[in-house]
Amino acid sequence: MKLKVKVMDVEQGQQEIVLNQELSHEMCLETGERVIVKYNGNEITCIIDESRRISKNTIILYHESAQKLNVKTGQMVDIRPAIKPAGIDYIKKKIRNESLNRMEITEIIANVLEEKLSNAELSAFITSIEINGMSPEETLYLTEEIYNSGEHMEWNSEKTVSIHSVGGVSGDRITMLATPILATLGYTVPKTATRAISSASGTIDAMEVLCNVTLNKKQIMEVIKKTKGCVAWGGAVNLAIADDKLIKIRNPLQLDPQPLVLSSIMAKKKAEGAKHVLIDVPFGRGAKILDLKNAEIISKSFRELGKGLGINTIVTLTDGSKPVLNEIGPSFEAKAVLEILEGKRKDKLYEKAVEMTAILYSNVEKISLEKAKQIIVQTITSGKALKKFQDIIIAQGGKIITSASIKHAKIKRIIKSTEHGIVSHLDNKNIARIARALGAPGDKQAGLIIKVATNQRITPGTELYEIYANSQENINEALRLMNDYRIIELQRLVYSIE
Amino acid sequence: MKLKVKVMDVEQGQQEIVLNQELSHEMCLETGERVIVKYNGNEITCIIDESRRISKNTIILYHESAQKLNVKTGQMVDIRPAIKPAGIDYIKKKIRNESLNRMEITEIIANVLEEKLSNAELSAFITSIEINGMSPEETLYLTEEIYNSGEHMEWNSEKTVSIHSVGGVSGDRITMLATPILATLGYTVPKTATRAISSASGTIDAMEVLCNVTLNKKQIMEVIKKTKGCVAWGGAVNLAIADDKLIKIRNPLQLDPQPLVLSSIMAKKKAEGAKHVLIDVPFGRGAKILDLKNAEIISKSFRELGKGLGINTIVTLTDGSKPVLNEIGPSFEAKAVLEILEGKRKDKLYEKAVEMTAILYSNVEKISLEKAKQIIVQTITSGKALKKFQDIIIAQGGKIITSASIKHAKIKRIIKSTEHGIVSHLDNKNIARIARALGAPGDKQAGLIIKVATNQRITPGTELYEIYANSQENINEALRLMNDYRIIELQRLVYSIE
Repeated sequence: MKLKVKVMDVEQGQQEIVLNQELSHEMCLETGERVIVKYNGNEITCIIDESRRISKNTIILYHESAQKLNVKTGQMVDIRPAIKPAGIDYIKKKIRNESLNRMEITEIIANVLEEKLSNAELSAFITSIEINGMSPEETLYLTEEIYNSGEHMEWNSEKTVSIHSVGGVSGDRITMLATPILATLGYTVPKTATRAISSASGTIDAMEVLCNVTLNKKQIMEVIKKTKGCVAWGGAVNLAIADDKLIKIRNPLQLDPQPLVLSSIMAKKKAEGAKHVLIDVPFGRGAKILDLKNAEIISKSFRELGKGLGINTIVTLTDGSKPVLNEIGPSFEAKAVLEILEGKRKDKLYEKAVEMTAILYSNVEKISLEKAKQIIVQTITSGKALKKFQDIIIAQGGKIITSASIKHAKIKRIIKSTEHGIVSHLDNKNIARIARALGAPGDKQAGLIIKVATNQRITPGTELYEIYANSQENINEALRLMNDYRIIELQRLVYSIE
Repeated sequence: MKLKVKVMDVEQGQQEIVLNQELSHEMCLETGERVIVKYNGNEITCIIDESRRISKNTIILYHESAQKLNVKTGQMVDIRPAIKPAGIDYIKKKIRNESLNRMEITEIIANVLEEKLSNAELSAFITSIEINGMSPEETLYLTEEIYNSGEHMEWNSEKTVSIHSVGGVSGDRITMLATPILATLGYTVPKTATRAISSASGTIDAMEVLCNVTLNKKQIMEVIKKTKGCVAWGGAVNLAIADDKLIKIRNPLQLDPQPLVLSSIMAKKKAEGAKHVLIDVPFGRGAKILDLKNAEIISKSFRELGKGLGINTIVTLTDGSKPVLNEIGPSFEAKAVLEILEGKRKDKLYEKAVEMTAILYSNVEKISLEKAKQIIVQTITSGKALKKFQDIIIAQGGKIITSASIKHAKIKRIIKSTEHGIVSHLDNKNIARIARALGAPGDKQAGLIIKVATNQRITPGTELYEIYANSQENINEALRLMNDYRIIELQRLVYSIE
């Protein structure tokens, strides 16, 4: 069937085309089925969408498809029905709770990469994994396929390391500290990270306050060559293309099936070329992992998967029920990191960063944890870690900056208590909600500073926290949200009388 | 945020808009999340798609959304982030295998109707039902909500009936016979049906050979007023709008979770205004339901659901392992129906139609099945059912037509056996594949005629079947497929030596 092309100059994640509805019915095709579109020797498989509003001799192609075919509006393409990609049968196997073998997982990921699967089909795959799970073998195959789907970095050093947190805890900026500390100690630390998804700031959002983070593979290799350390945005490096496509479906649905969390993280660690990996699993109320039992289960899976991938994998289970920093928001967090390296503060973030890096260091060097801690602390007190961090910032296109010069958003409000009580809980999820209402992470200067700690006694008038935004509208929105989403909870004998 | 509209003049099943990627990241929004789009007092919730290829001050709206907002290219709309529809939380409950209450199911279906759920979210819902199932209560709530989502037909007569097959069997044209037979007996028979999805011909494809089937509610009511019977395309009546939206996702995935099959069929029967319903469940190799056990399970569910809906529901379990007719394709099947009503043939279709209508009739009239069969046969032999069918065809805009005047496709090939053996199986799925390759159901004259029966002894040269198409290309395609998809299987002692 010959059809005249009309190109819509926007991208469509899936390779979709639009056909006249009547025509597609005549061809016994339906929305969601596939056709092969051919032009001048090129051919691609596309998913059909139907419209009554285009003529029967026309086909609408979106930007990417038109580009792949090298075709322009007005030219003629040939279409014919395509058979279903085999991956769909294997997705249905997973729906029936049958195990997938390596070939089947390879085929699904190949179909994902060729954009032969629709969002609905990918969603069915993710949902079936959420419900039916995956065996350790399936998870390993999946991780290897995701690893194979993207770029790889290789380093001469056996001492290439990476620290990664499963996430969900505000102010958990460990890797911004661990990277210069470990690089100071001679390790290669090619850290890639993501921007915030639901939190107030990801590692990348905070790092971006100090320098450029959008580096390609070549640029990362140059930074590492100069400094041994790097903190780059994973989204610019294509370390695991298949994973990016799955995440596009997972994020809006907020579905985090454990096998996909595992494969996503570990495929990227392997692609970073890490030989030793420390995975931090914060657990507790308000964190992603709710209790110790679940933290232990996922910890075991990480270690098993690491073994399969040939990566020395250490897992730490840490308290994720409270924020790691009292200051939340990209600039606030970047400032805190600098203050620690400048020797100006020794708070929970300092302690956690020392502990994490020492655990990794003692494991690789086969020395005691105490000894390792002494060495780590020495990198900070000597100023070497700060110097290394400045080198990394400069290598990534930034300027030398001191903590004192980092600015916060211009409008500030102090939130005071109206009640008596004892602080029993600081809620990570609600902190993220309020911080996002204030403009973070898009507005790097927006955020909040918590002024109380758990178990602290408060009275009416006690300052609870300060909020910062660059627009009155955002301040108002945050104030409005505070009624429904409480950052601070008080211990009470009687919670309500109804 | 004010943005300039660019309208894309095509429909998009989901209410999607396209934003500049950078802008959406600045707003902390992602593909798959939602915004409220406002124009001149109107507002709708839309799902975000991102593009790098539009400018930051532009928003792309598709036809339906632009129409709902009454906005044109170049005008300015206001957008702001929307909260997630509550239905998503309930879908996630189902993913966690928790039961949904009536309010939760009402909300999901409301979100479906408002087009607030993306294809990926609907797919997650369908997949979770496929894996976790639904209780009888959940299925009843879902059916009632689907019923509520569309138009309803009401009739004065308590004797309003409908026959429906779960499907999957070639040539199963029972309702084209049952409708005039039961209408002759004074019943109201407002039958709505679908076009073929994966088969060679649906009831509607065959009926369309004889008359118009695209009737709206008013037109159906007029046909029924004149003749008491009608065979109309459900797609033109909007009897269960929510179901149509779910089917758009289910069909390409070929996911038929039992609760959705039940709710889809029974909501439409209730919307037809049927007081008595006969559901035929063909089972066996090559049918949708594979064995007696599964047929019994679904039968029980149909009866239970019918009870909840206040519909007298009878279920028949029938042999679905072979085609009901030897002639397959819309014109072939319409011709066979006419020949039966003309008294020219008494084959398996004749027998099944007599049996089915008699079961329903004896149940409603509270007479013996034998007595009912006599009365049914009498409607045929007397010519009354043929006369009634002609009246219905004329009321639906057709002309009086005899079986002899129905034409087949012009190119014919006879397929002969090359082996000795005994026919052990005629495969419904492969018959549908070959018939579709020949052009059915799009080309109404295309199809095939099977010349052998199961248990028949054949020798090299025995005529197995004839294929008909209107283009040599389709004949060639069918011949090519025959190697992989065998319509006729022979009994063998040794199947292969390897």
